[in-house]
Amino acid sequence: MAAVEFWYEFASTYSYPAAMRVDALAKTRDVRVDWRPFLLGPIFAAQGWRDSPFNIYPAKGRYMWRDMQRTCLGLGLPLKRPEPFPQNSLLAARVALSLEGERRAVFSRLVYAAEFGRGLPIADRGVIAGLIAEIGLEPDAVLASAESEANKTLLKTETARAANLGIIGAPSLVTEDGEVFWGNDRLEQGLDWALEATFAQASGA
Amino acid sequence: MAAVEFWYEFASTYSYPAAMRVDALAKTRDVRVDWRPFLLGPIFAAQGWRDSPFNIYPAKGRYMWRDMQRTCLGLGLPLKRPEPFPQNSLLAARVALSLEGERRAVFSRLVYAAEFGRGLPIADRGVIAGLIAEIGLEPDAVLASAESEANKTLLKTETARAANLGIIGAPSLVTEDGEVFWGNDRLEQGLDWALEATFAQASGA
Repeated sequence: MAAVEFWYEFASTYSYPAAMRVDALAKTRDVRVDWRPFLLGPIFAAQGWRDSPFNIYPAKGRYMWRDMQRTCLGLGLPLKRPEPFPQNSLLAARVALSLEGERRAVFSRLVYAAEFGRGLPIADRGVIAGLIAEIGLEPDAVLASAESEANKTLLKTETARAANLGIIGAPSLVTEDGEVFWGNDRLEQGLDWALEATFAQASGA
Repeated sequence: MAAVEFWYEFASTYSYPAAMRVDALAKTRDVRVDWRPFLLGPIFAAQGWRDSPFNIYPAKGRYMWRDMQRTCLGLGLPLKRPEPFPQNSLLAARVALSLEGERRAVFSRLVYAAEFGRGLPIADRGVIAGLIAEIGLEPDAVLASAESEANKTLLKTETARAANLGIIGAPSLVTEDGEVFWGNDRLEQGLDWALEATFAQASGA
């Protein structure tokens, strides 16, 4: 069975529609999706950016929000801009990383729906605690685990790994042969690539 | 009949596959395409960039070239990086703008095929003269017209108009109702938008 890594950042707008689409697109192709939360901040900082490029370059920001409106309209997803933008995504990323398997995906979609569907501040501890409760877990216990030194270090390691893979933005799909596909608009292409690589292996090509 | 403006920059990599695709995609939708060459330099300069962002941010440049390889492979288009990159596109843009109708589109596709299909330097006057001869025109006469003060001014006006439309990169499609769709990967969406607007008008919506 083919597999892809789905690298996402909770502050990233285009990661929202991607998170809502990726599992269904992967299922029709029988590709397994490994959800990998990470932080774009350190990767942007290495390029000299201390804010979202959508804020640094306002014309690009205006275009992005209009493009997001059209994208979400086409997918039937609500869209509401959180204030401030971007949201600090550190806590959400730590919580997501501390959860295993399907729970991580479910929690992550809830975060995106809250942040970009309802415009809620995901930097707010109470908002995150509420989402943890929604998946049937005990917020205090999960937050303690998410903020353990081991989990904090793991998020740093994951972020460094994303940079080493050549990831420059979110969302990104990474295939087993190391191809990086950046953008909500590259999900289909990345999943097709993963599937074709499996066919090629199976046929001994 | 619906119409879109196709804004392109000869130094832009993604404008190459877009230029090769846009007329066929528009024809199946019965949308008219108005080819509009412009210069990204002044628009980038307004953002503080004095070089291609793909050079300013090397990780982004590496990703773009790999993405272009995959895109061109999928379309059956040859890809060869011109040196230096980006090419100075001023002369090519002036010549394209001085040509009318279908000749402009045909010449523009020849420029892209030379530059990114064969890696030829389109900043070279001899290369451009050769492409003018390929479409059956007399190079000296066309170059003189392209470099007339009126045509130079027209290119500046067109570039200012692109900025005013909210164009931040190339290629971009602009619909009659002012929507901007940026990227080779947005051609279908932009053309569909143009078509839907026409349907809505026809049905009095």
